[in-house]
Amino acid sequence: MEQKYPSALLEKAVGEFSRLPGIGRKTALRLVLHLLRQEPQFTVTFADSLTGLVQGVKYCKVCHNISDSEVCNICSHPKRDPSLVCVVENIQDVMAIENTQQFNGLYHVLGGVISPMDGIGPSDLQIASLVERVAAGGIREVILALSSTMEGDTTNFYIYRKLAASGVKLSVIARGISVGDELQYADEVTLGRSIVNRVEFDGKY
Amino acid sequence: MEQKYPSALLEKAVGEFSRLPGIGRKTALRLVLHLLRQEPQFTVTFADSLTGLVQGVKYCKVCHNISDSEVCNICSHPKRDPSLVCVVENIQDVMAIENTQQFNGLYHVLGGVISPMDGIGPSDLQIASLVERVAAGGIREVILALSSTMEGDTTNFYIYRKLAASGVKLSVIARGISVGDELQYADEVTLGRSIVNRVEFDGKY
Repeated sequence: MEQKYPSALLEKAVGEFSRLPGIGRKTALRLVLHLLRQEPQFTVTFADSLTGLVQGVKYCKVCHNISDSEVCNICSHPKRDPSLVCVVENIQDVMAIENTQQFNGLYHVLGGVISPMDGIGPSDLQIASLVERVAAGGIREVILALSSTMEGDTTNFYIYRKLAASGVKLSVIARGISVGDELQYADEVTLGRSIVNRVEFDGKY
Repeated sequence: MEQKYPSALLEKAVGEFSRLPGIGRKTALRLVLHLLRQEPQFTVTFADSLTGLVQGVKYCKVCHNISDSEVCNICSHPKRDPSLVCVVENIQDVMAIENTQQFNGLYHVLGGVISPMDGIGPSDLQIASLVERVAAGGIREVILALSSTMEGDTTNFYIYRKLAASGVKLSVIARGISVGDELQYADEVTLGRSIVNRVEFDGKY
């Protein structure tokens, strides 16, 4: 049912808020009324932080991650290994891998995966710049860390084809049983892969 | 685990977004990255609608609902009955009752209910202004339409005490079995009230 808002300003704010993904009109109204219960400065600061971001955002010219400078903190870090490049879909994936503290190389943010259903082709992604980056030399291994989905696999294969001639070592992240999972509840494809891709065990992890 | 953001601007925007109720840092990041995928104008319009609201919002001086003018559209409507006043907690409740199209009187928005646990006393609500409004005359019935909770009941009783001397007719909205509910699943308090407060049946609803 169409809602009747008591104020055009309120209706506009709710309408704008509900254009965000996962936020319906009821949630939008709740959030907007929350803003109205705060000091106006709260909302001004909130709004400024968003416009400040979209107007001031930069993307690292090397890895295409969000950055405050031309080259991001990771790419310009003196102690990271520039010969190791991890290819990921998006910024959240960079943050997730950084949180593991298991990777000391650089990244390459594709900006998504190939998905014909969504109209996303290779030219919409940072694949050409990855090929250039490898061609420029100094990279010994490219790690593909994309989602374990049809689209991720397609993208992995596309990149494999593009980089095969360069002679760079290509690897994909391991797929197998999640840490903490019980075997009997794992799906058979994952379990099968974890057996095929078993690793030598020397008594420690 | 603490997240490391690749940009201070991004971190600030995510931080501000996650101050909203029900929005954690992961959701905030997802929303902010969505904004970054849109044209900057999208975010500017969004931000402007919020600051425009909090800086331009007015509250009706009669019923305290959000309004674009001194007196809201409902209070100034020539075809509505000003002798009937429905007391509600908040703006969403006004919208919910308006959607039923069953009420043709005016409203009085309290701005909450008495809740000592949350530090909300009668003086934090628009109760004094309700008493004044009734004392000014012209009101024949005050309908209490508050939540069916301990706090709502407390507030109902407080208002009853304040208005008892005025001689105005007081009523509360009916509590009973929801339309579409099966009797066997109703809680016993609700079912008991629905029997005590049964209404005469003349063959139609």
